[in-house]
Amino acid sequence: VFWYDGSLRESASVEFDLRDRGLTLGDGVFDTSLARNGCTFRRKAHLDRLIVDAEILAIPFPETTAAQALDKLAAAVGDGAVRLTLTRGAGPRGLPLPKDPRPILFGVGIPQPRTTTFPVLTLSTTPIRRNETSPVSRVKALPYLDGILAYEEAKQRGADEVLFENTRGHVACLASANIFAVFGQHLVTPPVGDGVLAGTTRAFVITKARDLGYEVTERSLGIDKFSRAEAIFATSSLRLIAPCRSLDAMSFDSAENEIVKRLQVAIRDAVVEECGRL
Amino acid sequence: VFWYDGSLRESASVEFDLRDRGLTLGDGVFDTSLARNGCTFRRKAHLDRLIVDAEILAIPFPETTAAQALDKLAAAVGDGAVRLTLTRGAGPRGLPLPKDPRPILFGVGIPQPRTTTFPVLTLSTTPIRRNETSPVSRVKALPYLDGILAYEEAKQRGADEVLFENTRGHVACLASANIFAVFGQHLVTPPVGDGVLAGTTRAFVITKARDLGYEVTERSLGIDKFSRAEAIFATSSLRLIAPCRSLDAMSFDSAENEIVKRLQVAIRDAVVEECGRL
Repeated sequence: VFWYDGSLRESASVEFDLRDRGLTLGDGVFDTSLARNGCTFRRKAHLDRLIVDAEILAIPFPETTAAQALDKLAAAVGDGAVRLTLTRGAGPRGLPLPKDPRPILFGVGIPQPRTTTFPVLTLSTTPIRRNETSPVSRVKALPYLDGILAYEEAKQRGADEVLFENTRGHVACLASANIFAVFGQHLVTPPVGDGVLAGTTRAFVITKARDLGYEVTERSLGIDKFSRAEAIFATSSLRLIAPCRSLDAMSFDSAENEIVKRLQVAIRDAVVEECGRL
Repeated sequence: VFWYDGSLRESASVEFDLRDRGLTLGDGVFDTSLARNGCTFRRKAHLDRLIVDAEILAIPFPETTAAQALDKLAAAVGDGAVRLTLTRGAGPRGLPLPKDPRPILFGVGIPQPRTTTFPVLTLSTTPIRRNETSPVSRVKALPYLDGILAYEEAKQRGADEVLFENTRGHVACLASANIFAVFGQHLVTPPVGDGVLAGTTRAFVITKARDLGYEVTERSLGIDKFSRAEAIFATSSLRLIAPCRSLDAMSFDSAENEIVKRLQVAIRDAVVEECGRL
């Protein structure tokens, strides 16, 4: 089911302007959220993130429409995934921003996404670096080609996902998830300045782990130090908390780690509390 | 004038699939070329580049359709610019490549582009680095957000364009042009491996300058060495050869440089020879 031009639609085929800068230059942002029981888990966090991302790119944000689209798509999809996309809208050829931007908001609801909650993942490193020198590395922006290429490469090596380092050699994130390392009672995740998205599930985990009495630090980690973690796990809106059982040739007992298990229970409880069920 | 679904159109508004990966993930490539007298300057070089770029991203390339679109748009526009865009087409949510891709090719012809030939440019550096670790840095791919942001920043500082360094601190390119430095009778331009597009005008200049008896080297340059050039100039399909008169606070007599002037004459002659006029 789709949302376009202010209403729900059955068809993905719509009247669209070929000069849209989202289409011609990747000039836009998006958000993916988990729908359960017709409700969006962490609804406000998702809308807030879209607002912040749009602001970083100076795209006017249609707040009421976005909230409406999110709610209607979640209701229509019941249990599944919802993606909202905001582009800067049509503009003349070239890079200069259009003077009178008319952003385009559209969305899609997917009843049975391929991505499941709590998967156990195998990870592969990549020579492609996350470019933390660009604000785009901290925004859920449309340009995803690095992720697409690195993900394909990982798949060809038999891995489920890819772990990016940034240009300074610090661990950053997966193609579509944040990453945490567990050292004893201590959790470490790369800071946003290392070129990572301030993911909504990342924020949930930081807060919840502290509530549970664990120490959580946002700190740069080289791959060597990272590899010495007792457990590593990825966070994303659809996977929630995904233990990683390997990184290249190294193995991790992440799915058996007590902290990982407690956080999985905690986020499951939070979904049930907010949406009635997972 | 537009090209979509196999024919010319007057309107930019078309039936379009919201699941198109060019729109949702920046998953596609494009090419911009100069039209004069209804003809595309360096037609074959432009089509060849699109073919190579599509191959790097493993997007099937509709060769006959692309050539037809280019020719019809150039004929329709007469004197101006033509942009062709190829996306991977629609796919399910997420990064995995669609199994049965149906690429979408569309184009636009602009009779009076804002970009003129042979402009004199002022340049500004940027803290955003060109990410040479990614194959995307060497492809004219849809993701242009770094260029958009850096260009805006340059404009706010009063400059016309932005000079990117890569993550190793080597000079790379402008947001939408290649760059050359002139040292005596010697031209230097960053190698493709430094994260630059193998531009069609860049290739023309390398060949032509050698024909004219100058030495041309593709070599990495730090910004310090680059700044000691006698002249610097940018190359792009629409600007052709653009002398740069400043980089941040430094001035260059690039427009008065004999080599730059000879190359401008040479490319003007080449356009006239291929298309009948500039």
